[in-house]
Amino acid sequence: MNKELKFLKIISNTLKNPNYLGDDCAYLDEYKLAISSDSLIEDVHFSMQFMNPYEIARKSLLVNISDILASGAKPIYATINLSGCLDETFVDEFYKGINSIENEFDIKIIGGDLTKSDKIVISVTIFGSYKDLNPSSRKNAKENYIVACVGEFGSSAQGLEDLFSGIYDNYFINQHKNPKLYPRISSLIAKTAKKPYAMMDSSDGLVDCLAQISQKSNVRIDIEYDKIPHKTKNKDFVLYGGEDYSLVICIDEDDFNNIEGLIKIGTCKKGSSVYIDNEKIEYKSFDHFE
Amino acid sequence: MNKELKFLKIISNTLKNPNYLGDDCAYLDEYKLAISSDSLIEDVHFSMQFMNPYEIARKSLLVNISDILASGAKPIYATINLSGCLDETFVDEFYKGINSIENEFDIKIIGGDLTKSDKIVISVTIFGSYKDLNPSSRKNAKENYIVACVGEFGSSAQGLEDLFSGIYDNYFINQHKNPKLYPRISSLIAKTAKKPYAMMDSSDGLVDCLAQISQKSNVRIDIEYDKIPHKTKNKDFVLYGGEDYSLVICIDEDDFNNIEGLIKIGTCKKGSSVYIDNEKIEYKSFDHFE
Repeated sequence: MNKELKFLKIISNTLKNPNYLGDDCAYLDEYKLAISSDSLIEDVHFSMQFMNPYEIARKSLLVNISDILASGAKPIYATINLSGCLDETFVDEFYKGINSIENEFDIKIIGGDLTKSDKIVISVTIFGSYKDLNPSSRKNAKENYIVACVGEFGSSAQGLEDLFSGIYDNYFINQHKNPKLYPRISSLIAKTAKKPYAMMDSSDGLVDCLAQISQKSNVRIDIEYDKIPHKTKNKDFVLYGGEDYSLVICIDEDDFNNIEGLIKIGTCKKGSSVYIDNEKIEYKSFDHFE
Repeated sequence: MNKELKFLKIISNTLKNPNYLGDDCAYLDEYKLAISSDSLIEDVHFSMQFMNPYEIARKSLLVNISDILASGAKPIYATINLSGCLDETFVDEFYKGINSIENEFDIKIIGGDLTKSDKIVISVTIFGSYKDLNPSSRKNAKENYIVACVGEFGSSAQGLEDLFSGIYDNYFINQHKNPKLYPRISSLIAKTAKKPYAMMDSSDGLVDCLAQISQKSNVRIDIEYDKIPHKTKNKDFVLYGGEDYSLVICIDEDDFNNIEGLIKIGTCKKGSSVYIDNEKIEYKSFDHFE
């Protein structure tokens, strides 16, 4: 078992209500609020060498908004804790980036704090409303469900490789720095789907999504590689590359047919594990502590 | 103007809805939820030399719970983001500390993430409910209000000094590591007070509370030093020492008389500024960036 999974096991054995954990969001049914919280750390999640404060601010909110969209909820509020050796220029550019996201997604920043630290740390907690919406869960996939997606896979990983190889700007790099999200189709699914569905964002890669849904829902997932939308030629990036924030959805066939814009890439079957072109994938989830 | 205030000015000029900022908590009236978020950073807010993971975990939640209690709300949920060069022992002891707070305050941990970083960073977002309660605001103090408090002042600063001088354990050190909170009286005030009131916790010191309330409410605050509950003999610690998390309340006299357990330390008057024994205090707020 990898380190991260061991930590998560310790945590769920220690906390009083571990049933809130396990999806990208916690669901507070009393309020119909989905909550997610993530930290981005300099030189772990981003580098000041490649990204400016405006871009870092946008991405730190986008990756959190993506978790809410993957839950089927509508993002409404966020808190932002910013730490670093800050100066006025950094704070100004950073909050201009935050403001650009406030406007694009119609969310409100309701609090947070500023503290001093050596490395920049950004901690975002985001609130989504699922009032009158049908939220997703990784446990919801069923036999005969369609495996669908929105967006593309591998572009962000290709962009990061391009940055390291000295390229400054191209399509892939833009996808890496400023990932495209899919609020319209997330909302359409949450409004339209009659049956329970499983949706995740591909923050840790396509195969990671499929493996998590397969495990939590006890289904086999079969994918046809050629159906997976991708622009990079690197197959490893397409399957395992993280930070695309595309949506992966396992959904009932009737619901699938009622929702325009979904791309079918496979099927849920009886059994377990993920298969690409009938070949079983031996997948170990990404360990953030190795 | 100090750096932190400059940053806060930039932020409130940039964000779409700066009216959520300015109190310890943001108030979401639609949900009757008070939200607060704070980060604790190794070697800025705590030192592994003096505190173990269990104590660090408790304190990181306690300081956030204190913000909710200062708002008059009841703490119900929290998310915790933990970063560091973690190992299983650290994670185990840390979450045992978290669990001890879950039990003491009847709150639920609903999410968060684990990431790798050089220094330990703990980011907590806490949710309090003020359903059927009258929440506080720094803007609510009025002429002739009583200035009251619960708890004591200067003990945590004395404890920190004692730690640095090589003492390992005494009353003050315990107050510093494991601050006492006042959920019962916070709840009593929020249930009982008929008029608006201003309440803050003394996280940045007694004078800081008084100065903030005085500025935001446009009142003069007069305090009698001898009435301030304290155990340390260091007057600077009593007035300016942070991290006690005692409550400072400006409240209508009738409401004050109806609430048992409040200690009167002064009065709100027409005018501005804070006076201790009739001497005006020239106060600059603590700058976390100097």
